[in-house]
Amino acid sequence: MQFKTFQPPHRTLMGPGPSDVHPRVLEALGRPTIGHLDPQFVAMMDELKQLLQYAFRTTNPLTIPVSGPGSAGMEAAFVNLVEPGDTVIVCINGVFGGRMKENVERCGATAVMVEDPWGHPVDVDKVELALKAHPEASVLAFVHAETSTGARSDAETLCRLAHEYGCLVIMDAVTSLGGIPVEIDAWGVDAVYSGSQKCLSCTPGLSPVSFSPRAVERIRSRTHKVQSWFLDLNLVMGYWGGGDATPKRAYHHTAPINALYGLHESLVMLAEEGLEASWARHRRMHEALAAGIEAMGLELIVAAPWRLPQLNAVRVPVGVDEAAVRQRLLAEFDLEIGGGLGALAGKAWRIGLMGYAARPDNVRLCLRALGTALAGVEGVNAAAGVESAEGMLGRAAA
Amino acid sequence: MQFKTFQPPHRTLMGPGPSDVHPRVLEALGRPTIGHLDPQFVAMMDELKQLLQYAFRTTNPLTIPVSGPGSAGMEAAFVNLVEPGDTVIVCINGVFGGRMKENVERCGATAVMVEDPWGHPVDVDKVELALKAHPEASVLAFVHAETSTGARSDAETLCRLAHEYGCLVIMDAVTSLGGIPVEIDAWGVDAVYSGSQKCLSCTPGLSPVSFSPRAVERIRSRTHKVQSWFLDLNLVMGYWGGGDATPKRAYHHTAPINALYGLHESLVMLAEEGLEASWARHRRMHEALAAGIEAMGLELIVAAPWRLPQLNAVRVPVGVDEAAVRQRLLAEFDLEIGGGLGALAGKAWRIGLMGYAARPDNVRLCLRALGTALAGVEGVNAAAGVESAEGMLGRAAA
Repeated sequence: MQFKTFQPPHRTLMGPGPSDVHPRVLEALGRPTIGHLDPQFVAMMDELKQLLQYAFRTTNPLTIPVSGPGSAGMEAAFVNLVEPGDTVIVCINGVFGGRMKENVERCGATAVMVEDPWGHPVDVDKVELALKAHPEASVLAFVHAETSTGARSDAETLCRLAHEYGCLVIMDAVTSLGGIPVEIDAWGVDAVYSGSQKCLSCTPGLSPVSFSPRAVERIRSRTHKVQSWFLDLNLVMGYWGGGDATPKRAYHHTAPINALYGLHESLVMLAEEGLEASWARHRRMHEALAAGIEAMGLELIVAAPWRLPQLNAVRVPVGVDEAAVRQRLLAEFDLEIGGGLGALAGKAWRIGLMGYAARPDNVRLCLRALGTALAGVEGVNAAAGVESAEGMLGRAAA
Repeated sequence: MQFKTFQPPHRTLMGPGPSDVHPRVLEALGRPTIGHLDPQFVAMMDELKQLLQYAFRTTNPLTIPVSGPGSAGMEAAFVNLVEPGDTVIVCINGVFGGRMKENVERCGATAVMVEDPWGHPVDVDKVELALKAHPEASVLAFVHAETSTGARSDAETLCRLAHEYGCLVIMDAVTSLGGIPVEIDAWGVDAVYSGSQKCLSCTPGLSPVSFSPRAVERIRSRTHKVQSWFLDLNLVMGYWGGGDATPKRAYHHTAPINALYGLHESLVMLAEEGLEASWARHRRMHEALAAGIEAMGLELIVAAPWRLPQLNAVRVPVGVDEAAVRQRLLAEFDLEIGGGLGALAGKAWRIGLMGYAARPDNVRLCLRALGTALAGVEGVNAAAGVESAEGMLGRAAA
């Protein structure tokens, strides 16, 4: 066995996540490990819950990070709120809606699909028809910000409709949290999950979640045990609290201590900047990038009203090998952008402007690198792209 | 919101885990994050698999870290190998056998329990009787090293019996891996899970697992879909490989990049030291601690042949408030040891000597601190404990 310490290269991460991690978060990860029931760790957990409540705009006591990636957070939402025989209306307009359907079916429930084209938002009228047609449905599930396409859906209206028809709401906010408004209490979201590696500038591996008191009530009055022991919130609440006024902090599983240091630091930074300021920064960087992309002669796939500032899907020009371009960006510029998934495979690049990655230097680097890689492609004017973005960045700074 | 960067204290971690993390692992955690499909990250993943194969003494291609704590690794073993209607023989001699039973039942299967007193090993004769009485059983599950009591069970014999009766074996090696011999191929273990935070000197949050080709075959020929999407190894293999000669590295979930840097570093260190040397070090430190504990007038709960060197359960003397002692060790010595769980709650301390914590200074600190906290308790001779351990450590160093 002749293996050495792994020394990763320095990349700029502008794909669909993980995104650039702030140096303060990386520093926090390496602090001394303490016990998961250490009084000082428990005090940090309490702060973390408050910081997550701030980020989610909620007073839900059950607001915690799940000890796993966003997929584990998604599963926590479904296995706790869905029982065998239930009907769940699932909105699908990209990869992650499809994953919700998988979760519903693996809970022994029936998924009623409301499908929309990739790159479009969820159609609220179709959702209302499905709610009307399925009075037996107990949950409406949708993705707020589809990471696979860069489309935002109208969460507020979807929540209102769900409640009108007696459904709880499960919302995927993996890519939205911190980048655009996410209003858990104002919209009435009953269960939401996110990811640490997108607009929070943190490393991957944790999934912030929040459950409304109504959702907690449903979890506590289930007929069947939750099929996952690891994700059973009845047990997780015993460690994190969230159900009771005076949690006992009973051992459930060993929390990922150092990863939680990182998430805490990223949320302290979000609170320092302010949520609204973070949203505005993502918006400004998106406007500069979008102006550059369009001035360069490229096309954004999602219509303007539904574009996520933090995830920009760009159509690959005819005749261009999209994977070769990404490989060149990585090799020559140490820049990672994403390719398309599913229906957009081979047809799109996904450019993230998430968290610490949403800054002027990244916009400049991306446009310069893309311009270099696409030099000579018909209709592409690299210089115009950089110039246009520079103008927007200059105005934003002024 | 007025929160600051969390600055954890420097503790010495001699509880049941997390244990002391090596400084090289902490340093690795803070290295630059790269993408989960970055070619350099994929190359690191391949090294990680080989390093885990070394640690587990196996050639199983499906040998990977699950992106969650040991409880997630446990669940991965059960949800993939157990189907509704199956019968599983579960050996219970502590907390973690009980948790296995929960997992079996949440899979819709029947758990046949073989129970032994806490602090004792699993009784192989009782297991054989259960295997005989339940020819319909498809899996035997047991805990190799019970973290709740410090007892080791005879894994080799249990595996032999299981195979004689046509069962696959699921083994919990959370606390054993790296600390005592774990021979996946020689014993014929079909599914094993461990934890990063015990004898590997790494931070908590990851669960190394390994599945035999026979187990993979069973997973691939299941009648029902795996109930967990996140832990479905049919999907996870698409990202990590392990089933095919030429894995495609398809996206499943976003790997916890920086946590994996830490695990990689901890395994590089294990390979540098050598597995046998690591086992011998745990043994030497245990012998010194045990000598000190007994010379001090305290009693180890587990009988000598079954004692785990890395987890020492000490009986609390009559009249002593065990929690108050632990609080004092933490406050005065920045030393964490564990209390008892379940049947041993209030009756035991659990002193870990795991990974980087298994070193002479920790043995000395622990005996000195315990001696101080127990000064004046009838029958306790603190000085004799320190002196006896020092003699053993001196001989070991010579």
